[in-house]
Amino acid sequence: MSGGGRRRRSDHTWTTGLFSIIMFSFAELAEQFAGKFDTKHFPDSLPSLYQPAEYFLSMGGKRVRPVICLMGNELFDTIQPDAWNVAHAVELFHNFTLIHDDIMDKAPLRRGKPTVHVKYGEPTALLAGDVMIVAAYDYLSKINTVHLPGIMHLFNKTAREVCEGQQLDMDFEKRERITLDEYMQMVTLKTSVLLAASVQMGAMLGGSGEGNQEHLYAFGKNLGIAFQLQDDYLDAFGDPEKFGKQPGGDIMANKKTFLTIQALETATPVQQKELLYLMKENPPGKVERVLQIFRDCKVDQWAKDLKDKYLGLALRHLEDTAVTGSRKQPLEELALFLVQREY
Amino acid sequence: MSGGGRRRRSDHTWTTGLFSIIMFSFAELAEQFAGKFDTKHFPDSLPSLYQPAEYFLSMGGKRVRPVICLMGNELFDTIQPDAWNVAHAVELFHNFTLIHDDIMDKAPLRRGKPTVHVKYGEPTALLAGDVMIVAAYDYLSKINTVHLPGIMHLFNKTAREVCEGQQLDMDFEKRERITLDEYMQMVTLKTSVLLAASVQMGAMLGGSGEGNQEHLYAFGKNLGIAFQLQDDYLDAFGDPEKFGKQPGGDIMANKKTFLTIQALETATPVQQKELLYLMKENPPGKVERVLQIFRDCKVDQWAKDLKDKYLGLALRHLEDTAVTGSRKQPLEELALFLVQREY
Repeated sequence: MSGGGRRRRSDHTWTTGLFSIIMFSFAELAEQFAGKFDTKHFPDSLPSLYQPAEYFLSMGGKRVRPVICLMGNELFDTIQPDAWNVAHAVELFHNFTLIHDDIMDKAPLRRGKPTVHVKYGEPTALLAGDVMIVAAYDYLSKINTVHLPGIMHLFNKTAREVCEGQQLDMDFEKRERITLDEYMQMVTLKTSVLLAASVQMGAMLGGSGEGNQEHLYAFGKNLGIAFQLQDDYLDAFGDPEKFGKQPGGDIMANKKTFLTIQALETATPVQQKELLYLMKENPPGKVERVLQIFRDCKVDQWAKDLKDKYLGLALRHLEDTAVTGSRKQPLEELALFLVQREY
Repeated sequence: MSGGGRRRRSDHTWTTGLFSIIMFSFAELAEQFAGKFDTKHFPDSLPSLYQPAEYFLSMGGKRVRPVICLMGNELFDTIQPDAWNVAHAVELFHNFTLIHDDIMDKAPLRRGKPTVHVKYGEPTALLAGDVMIVAAYDYLSKINTVHLPGIMHLFNKTAREVCEGQQLDMDFEKRERITLDEYMQMVTLKTSVLLAASVQMGAMLGGSGEGNQEHLYAFGKNLGIAFQLQDDYLDAFGDPEKFGKQPGGDIMANKKTFLTIQALETATPVQQKELLYLMKENPPGKVERVLQIFRDCKVDQWAKDLKDKYLGLALRHLEDTAVTGSRKQPLEELALFLVQREY
């Protein structure tokens, strides 16, 4: 249980009984992960295919999923080599979904840069995604066979669910109204289950029992919902300086979000009529007028409260995980960071 | 080594020493595989995603890859449950590539029916392919952990190569001329390696040593090239009655094939000029005039000879596989069927 041998960082040293536990923070693990992950993943042999794949990976990202996997592992022991393999697999899988989602959504930009299909054409983007999911499974194939079937089972189930989430998202695009429950289900599949599975896989590799695994899965799942609530909130009410882009993108694109769905559910007939008019006609000043309706309907506060509710649920599951409290601190910090971030 | 307990078929009973060896023919294994494979592979929960995936699988196919895997397994022992799992994985992976290739190639039809993207739209077709490769890995995850890392390693390497083959195919589309060597490399990646890996994975699960595995891989690889030669040949010179469709599809689409590449390499300046004119202008009677040039340049006979050369190479590797000769008969018959088929 001691962190002996690892770099000591005073701000992450807690004393429990005889041993000092030194665990890594999100920033530290993200940096360590980047040190391993930010390298070439594909051969030089076929640049027309592999350069687009490398291009996408080089765009970076928050690397939340691999880090939460590493943290789930470190909850039980020092981080094991197999946790790094699964962290790589999870991040490659996530990037595979992003490349394909961008094609399906006809998205021109990702993190401010042209998407793969815009830069290299749809066929190559499709294939670049395909080689990326294969690369993800290649990392899985390296892990100890004691864990391999269990990890693959959860990984595959999650991969299916993420695809289902994307299909639901597209199905919902075609419908005028969807309920909050439906949106919640879509978000759970598209975003939450991968966070949940990532932390659970880390725990599995750390030798966690099933009860703890279930709590950690529920922690990740609820955290994912809170994370998406924050995402939707920031896209409407984010501070442009911190958010890095002008908010209102979702509003301009008439994207269904927690905010629009709740606004349509709670608006007065007059507000509802205006909201539908704004969404249909895209008049000048649309974003400001939609935001005003959001404020009038108090969906900004509602979103914050709902986010806190799911964060609370997540933290309760973390609390119920039968592990020394101090070992949970990095996961708790990560949860707070994800739902309080302003970018 | 005895086939005791299985249905005896006089036409596949050979006597070696004390035991009668009863092995399954291609037709028998294809039927057995269909009995297991032709069922629902996805849940009912999300028809907008899973119905398109089931639709594609219901189109059928020759099921050559799973059968050659089963045969590779039966070469060493009675067919094992894990060989069925790998056979399923291979067929699902193959169908994943077909769905995605159809999107990339903008193909309207497959086996005479509308392709998935034509029937359900490109985004859903893309996702249907994605859930299919995940389903393939799900079958792999079921196999004995003694074999799992080795099988996954070969499967992943092959999957990458198949993607590379498709990318090369697309790269070549944009070029006016490609060499025979380049086309051969593309065919090897796009078609041959999956046949090769399928038979090798069957052998691995049967406990085959590395030498035999290498011979069987080479058998499948050379067979795949002969198979593609027959494909290209039939598309130009097939008997419409047996081929099931009017030949000349590749010619109409100006697809680069073994035949066009060889014709361009061996044609006289006058023939070459006419061929390039026909490909560029698509005048009436194009197919007949191209076929006449093919005949004049003797590329029909050349293709047959080259096919026989690769079939010969394949059979030599099968011969060199250190297994009782009579056990190899089904694979030999399959090879002859694949390169002599008229449809």
